[in-house]
Amino acid sequence: MYRNFVDTQDFTKEELLDMKDLGIKIKKYLKDGNYLDVLHHKTLGMIFEQKSTRTRVSFETAMEQLGGHAQYLAPGQIQLGAHESLYDTAKVLGRLTDILMARVIEHNSIVTLAKYAGVPVINGMSDYNHPTQELGDLITIFEHMPKDKRFEDLKIVFFGDATQVCASLGMLVTHLGGHFVQFGPKGFQLNEHFQEICRKNCEKYGGTFLITENLDEAIKDADFIYTDVWYGLYESELSEEERMKIFYPKYQVNMDVIKKASPNVKFMHCLPATRGEEVTDEVMDSEYSVVFDEAENRLTAMRALLVYFMGKEKETLEIIEGRN
Amino acid sequence: MYRNFVDTQDFTKEELLDMKDLGIKIKKYLKDGNYLDVLHHKTLGMIFEQKSTRTRVSFETAMEQLGGHAQYLAPGQIQLGAHESLYDTAKVLGRLTDILMARVIEHNSIVTLAKYAGVPVINGMSDYNHPTQELGDLITIFEHMPKDKRFEDLKIVFFGDATQVCASLGMLVTHLGGHFVQFGPKGFQLNEHFQEICRKNCEKYGGTFLITENLDEAIKDADFIYTDVWYGLYESELSEEERMKIFYPKYQVNMDVIKKASPNVKFMHCLPATRGEEVTDEVMDSEYSVVFDEAENRLTAMRALLVYFMGKEKETLEIIEGRN
Amino acid sequence: MYRNFVDTQDFTKEELLDMKDLGIKIKKYLKDGNYLDVLHHKTLGMIFEQKSTRTRVSFETAMEQLGGHAQYLAPGQIQLGAHESLYDTAKVLGRLTDILMARVIEHNSIVTLAKYAGVPVINGMSDYNHPTQELGDLITIFEHMPKDKRFEDLKIVFFGDATQVCASLGMLVTHLGGHFVQFGPKGFQLNEHFQEICRKNCEKYGGTFLITENLDEAIKDADFIYTDVWYGLYESELSEEERMKIFYPKYQVNMDVIKKASPNVKFMHCLPATRGEEVTDEVMDSEYSVVFDEAENRLTAMRALLVYFMGKEKETLEIIEGRN
Repeated sequence: MYRNFVDTQDFTKEELLDMKDLGIKIKKYLKDGNYLDVLHHKTLGMIFEQKSTRTRVSFETAMEQLGGHAQYLAPGQIQLGAHESLYDTAKVLGRLTDILMARVIEHNSIVTLAKYAGVPVINGMSDYNHPTQELGDLITIFEHMPKDKRFEDLKIVFFGDATQVCASLGMLVTHLGGHFVQFGPKGFQLNEHFQEICRKNCEKYGGTFLITENLDEAIKDADFIYTDVWYGLYESELSEEERMKIFYPKYQVNMDVIKKASPNVKFMHCLPATRGEEVTDEVMDSEYSVVFDEAENRLTAMRALLVYFMGKEKETLEIIEGRN
Repeated sequence: MYRNFVDTQDFTKEELLDMKDLGIKIKKYLKDGNYLDVLHHKTLGMIFEQKSTRTRVSFETAMEQLGGHAQYLAPGQIQLGAHESLYDTAKVLGRLTDILMARVIEHNSIVTLAKYAGVPVINGMSDYNHPTQELGDLITIFEHMPKDKRFEDLKIVFFGDATQVCASLGMLVTHLGGHFVQFGPKGFQLNEHFQEICRKNCEKYGGTFLITENLDEAIKDADFIYTDVWYGLYESELSEEERMKIFYPKYQVNMDVIKKASPNVKFMHCLPATRGEEVTDEVMDSEYSVVFDEAENRLTAMRALLVYFMGKEKETLEIIEGRN
Repeated sequence: MYRNFVDTQDFTKEELLDMKDLGIKIKKYLKDGNYLDVLHHKTLGMIFEQKSTRTRVSFETAMEQLGGHAQYLAPGQIQLGAHESLYDTAKVLGRLTDILMARVIEHNSIVTLAKYAGVPVINGMSDYNHPTQELGDLITIFEHMPKDKRFEDLKIVFFGDATQVCASLGMLVTHLGGHFVQFGPKGFQLNEHFQEICRKNCEKYGGTFLITENLDEAIKDADFIYTDVWYGLYESELSEEERMKIFYPKYQVNMDVIKKASPNVKFMHCLPATRGEEVTDEVMDSEYSVVFDEAENRLTAMRALLVYFMGKEKETLEIIEGRN
């Protein structure tokens, strides 16, 4: 049997750390000049209801590197639940591919697809969460965290609007026992549903969770500062004027903010960034910024997820370790 | 030299059965965990003047499984006969790819493409016929027909509008000596051109051919019931109100219809289906329905066609039989 | 370190001839039935801000034939400099692919992409030049030039509007010491910038360069006649009425023109052609026409460029020569 990757909360801490380790090992193995063909001639069907650059390119490169192929079904080419029932689409695509991923407008679409496809389904972002970003971020955090700290010691602060990326980061960090803060204005803070998940994670795994409008409280000793655009989600997008009025300048990540955090603080952003709004050029291009490593780790994550959910983890580790 | 797959009527009964057998053998070989690389590094150019899910995904997966690659040229990317003469497009694409397929608005486009491309051309559906669907359906019929019957014994009934799929099914079934019925209302029945082809096929191959508005006559002892959407073809699409007035409820496939057919009757649909119009949920999801096997056999057919028209049938059979 | 292919003027005559030879050798090697896998599992990211058939299909087929994969990022999928800074896009795509190509609206976009991507970047046409077309044309000229002539002896005449293809051809021919003529009306002649480059090339490499409205002067002893559409460039496109008034009939390539040239003259066109405007059917379909060889050599050129800029020239030549 197979599993789906719809929500990281469906997996244990150990499973998520395994995926992270798998990603890092494959990355090193390929950078050393080796080839992996564990998904030889396999096909990933990629359904996009929304535009995407990083997610699409990462998956397509990952499939090529693993010996298979990714089909890009662009927005408008497949409209989930429009011309035929989503059930029928799921059943058909599951017969014609080996694994599916979808970026969906409504979270329920990815849940339904996963339920009926008959092949593993990966959530490439919904209006609810962004788990492939989570795994890439987890890898980036492990690569850049202070040598003398464990994940459980980290303070990770999200600046700005409670986007899916914010929600995902909060769920991930608390699930792994770390300390998460959202620094954002009322009306743009994580909702009660997500707060409840984070609170329960903290009770179970020993981390902490805070939502605040107080910059000093948020930023003190922060190991990672993370932000996302201020557009808002999907149809309910904010105009430039609206979003600047709400978030600027208080929630912008600039060098004054960086200086108040831990001396080794790292800056993360899921990209694309609107330079001059949520982050300054100075921060984006500083030594504190790990945003391009983070972008590359989308690929690191996709390789791990494809191998893991196609049931090739054991085989892959044997190949990698056999060669070392 | 090479041939094109524009119309199944250009091939003998034996050739069509060979393609069917080839498809079934490759399917089994791959399901057994083997790899085939007979189209290693070959490129299929796929021209779509109309949207498609099943045809595109099937071809793209098939090329990957056979060691090659399919290029997706989406609607609007290549407009046949618009910016340059279709002759020039055919000549150029034939120089840059190894084999072509096209889903065209006008049948004449696929005929012209096939005439000039200089590489094999496969018809991925026109306003006239749908031969790749035919081959997939032939495979599905062989997989699901009663054990004690030959194809020549089968009664295959199409419900509803004389779409390309209806025309194709009629030509296929009579070409192979079976018994074909279209149960559809006047004004939406196969035209004289198609009737003439079917009549001649029956004279030559011994089957029968009937168009009727009488349900009992149509359905009696039917081995397969097949239907398609009631939208109509391309630009002359019918509104929901219009089509319901014409076809509903008389031409809907529901459980009352199923019960009047042979006890082992199977239900087929080229998909997408409009559940609640031409077919009920109850039939689609019943044990009589083979629609998802049929969808999967689009892929089975594409593999066979690619191998056959690239001249790799002999080599493929040697590989498959050498291993068994 | 790596280099970018933004402008042929950045390369020495010898380097351009090396790329040409590499292309011809790979072409022969593959036509002989061999496989090359020198870009095994490598990914080319293709960014198109404008539609393209030949460039896109050529690159995608080339990557498949060399063992890798090309990702097609269609117009609208990535808007360079729109949602995020071009700097960020370059950095991210460079992390997720092995090599990039782009067809851009403004030349500055390809220059910026090449500066920051961190992987080799190939210019797939800008509003300034079209260097991949140049390399394909160079190969076509070598394949079709009179046996008793050297490139430096050739007279190559461009008919019509000073498009990027005209500018590129002028720069290429003079860079390699040949004789270039643009036969076009005032207002549609190569600008001073391009004239200056061509003049300097002639001083350095010994060729000649002429812009004229005099047909007899242009065509006398011409070895190659080349033309392009009369639409004009990008947004400043001319209507059919406008362009016919400017160019027709004087600048049309018809059989009267062909007869005034060298008896062995060859006709070239980058395609698509508007038959009946810049060239007649009679010429396009005559024995003088090498337009489909030229189209095929887009592929010949892309293979050479991919191998060359991925640093695989030496390895490829060893494979090819080791086998012969």
